[in-house]
Amino acid sequence: MRKLKAVFPKHKIDALLVTRDVNIRYLTGFPAGESWLLVGQRRSYYLTDSRYIQEAKEGLKGASVVLTRRSIAETFFETVRKAGIKNIGFDTRYMTLSQYRDLKRRCPREVRLVKADQLVEDQRMIKDKGEIKKIGKALSIHKLAYAFLKKNIKPNIKENELSIRLERFVQSKGAGLSFPSIIASGPNSCYPHAKVTQRRFRRNEGVLIDMGVDVEGYKSDLTRMFFLGKIPALIRPVFEAVREAQMLAIAGIKAGVKASDIDLLARNSLKKRKLDKYFGHALGHGVGLEVHESPRLAHNDATILKEGMVLTVEPAVYIPGKFGVRLEDMVLVGKNDCEILSDDIH
Amino acid sequence: MRKLKAVFPKHKIDALLVTRDVNIRYLTGFPAGESWLLVGQRRSYYLTDSRYIQEAKEGLKGASVVLTRRSIAETFFETVRKAGIKNIGFDTRYMTLSQYRDLKRRCPREVRLVKADQLVEDQRMIKDKGEIKKIGKALSIHKLAYAFLKKNIKPNIKENELSIRLERFVQSKGAGLSFPSIIASGPNSCYPHAKVTQRRFRRNEGVLIDMGVDVEGYKSDLTRMFFLGKIPALIRPVFEAVREAQMLAIAGIKAGVKASDIDLLARNSLKKRKLDKYFGHALGHGVGLEVHESPRLAHNDATILKEGMVLTVEPAVYIPGKFGVRLEDMVLVGKNDCEILSDDIH
Repeated sequence: MRKLKAVFPKHKIDALLVTRDVNIRYLTGFPAGESWLLVGQRRSYYLTDSRYIQEAKEGLKGASVVLTRRSIAETFFETVRKAGIKNIGFDTRYMTLSQYRDLKRRCPREVRLVKADQLVEDQRMIKDKGEIKKIGKALSIHKLAYAFLKKNIKPNIKENELSIRLERFVQSKGAGLSFPSIIASGPNSCYPHAKVTQRRFRRNEGVLIDMGVDVEGYKSDLTRMFFLGKIPALIRPVFEAVREAQMLAIAGIKAGVKASDIDLLARNSLKKRKLDKYFGHALGHGVGLEVHESPRLAHNDATILKEGMVLTVEPAVYIPGKFGVRLEDMVLVGKNDCEILSDDIH
Repeated sequence: MRKLKAVFPKHKIDALLVTRDVNIRYLTGFPAGESWLLVGQRRSYYLTDSRYIQEAKEGLKGASVVLTRRSIAETFFETVRKAGIKNIGFDTRYMTLSQYRDLKRRCPREVRLVKADQLVEDQRMIKDKGEIKKIGKALSIHKLAYAFLKKNIKPNIKENELSIRLERFVQSKGAGLSFPSIIASGPNSCYPHAKVTQRRFRRNEGVLIDMGVDVEGYKSDLTRMFFLGKIPALIRPVFEAVREAQMLAIAGIKAGVKASDIDLLARNSLKKRKLDKYFGHALGHGVGLEVHESPRLAHNDATILKEGMVLTVEPAVYIPGKFGVRLEDMVLVGKNDCEILSDDIH
């Protein structure tokens, strides 16, 4: 919270209202639910209802716990008044129009609500040592999961059978999945966000597996292609093109570079082989408490990369109705280059 | 969608923008993700990006699929213009202030954005036969799950061990969990939303198990108390008071009654035993595509109950630091009474 308070003057605020659960978790270590955090210059306040009040009082550090009565907005302004807060920043992306209108209606004349988007997310982009360690733990279990998959992926087994076994394996290691795994065999792989089906694996076809492991809230997110037998002749050149695009992009990642420029590196590489039109999504994204977080390696993200960012790099080519290839690794941005965190996971 | 369009004139709109995923799923049968549905009087439009466009084109019925280009808001107004739509309703509770400001900025002069909250949710409150059947399927697997729990809950086993076994059991029946199960033993049960811990079950204590089964998106949600041996003398009278409050509330449920009055029935029953101060949350809620949906059986919900609503009834008493008792059943509102859907699940 200290770093967060340091940017208050720049935004002309003396407090920040945090309504987004994952940001509250980041700042307090407490997994919130329908609760608000008011970060003041001196004291902070965690507003919650009777369902969570006991756990909050016992588990939450760095903020006074306030029980909300009739409505959270009413209790919020009571707290604001008592604390003598005047200019409150809030994130317009995590405030519904309905909530905002209710706040405006109740807002005392001397208090101002000020747009202050992305303040916590900006801070979350840069991972500290403790966070990198947790991501590392998730990746070490992820590595075991891929070894498990290699042993268990066989012709005739169904995608959804493998999916359940994978989940049990990850749970048996004391972790959870970051998101429902994508296990897309044969033509199913042509959907960027394929759902697991009852389709059985066949010999000599590609299987795209995109999965993640969650350890103490911190996540991994990797995609690998599995081939049961030979790589089909149609897929091989596409696979190599995607691998090359990925390597070129990773080679360009370091502090000081613009996120959109990295996206362009991969896209131009695919363009040379006329495959860029089959690559519709962004090249990558930050990973941490969320699977997808800031920044994005995308044409419209001008974020300058900084040391300590953890990013996915996941170029892909999807040939409609036929097959798809996506390769996704995680990197840690360094001063002069980046470290591939998932280099030893095959 | 037909029923939905019928209420457009009342709200002075000729189209409704639906941004909430679960509502899009309800109206189209298609599980949406970061997509918008524009329901027009004649035609409807589903706006999505490259990640979901193929599945949408293949799987979505009742709406034209439109690929969003740079921004969803830009594509939205292009669609609105082509369709000649003038007055667009939207739900202020599922529109962020940031989205709204972006829409307002791009909005052509002849187009009006009109607050129209809760239209789809109002419709979702009343379940049709197909929906009730799916909830019934979820409950039939839920019944098996409780039988499984009865066999597997034993002294010395940890809460989280049982939780994993329970999840596997439900998966083996081809279903999923509606939410992370609450398995709260001994003093852990005094938290309304307890998290599963490593605590081991002991003889002669209560275990609160709140879980739900998901079948094709439709959910069950029930809470039962398990006792390993005798019911402790401290808990017995509380258990009976909660059971009585629940029975009184259920006896009052029928079409035409106000939701808040049912909440009061249970609360007054607990008040007679001076236990109402330990019952902080609402008495119940609708269940369907969401575990918690409209209406709420709560002091501040004036909804008049109607035939076809499916509700939970879950009075509780939480004695801080000691124990909690919650009993939760599901009922289907009828014309003159209600049917307890979970009556045969012990």
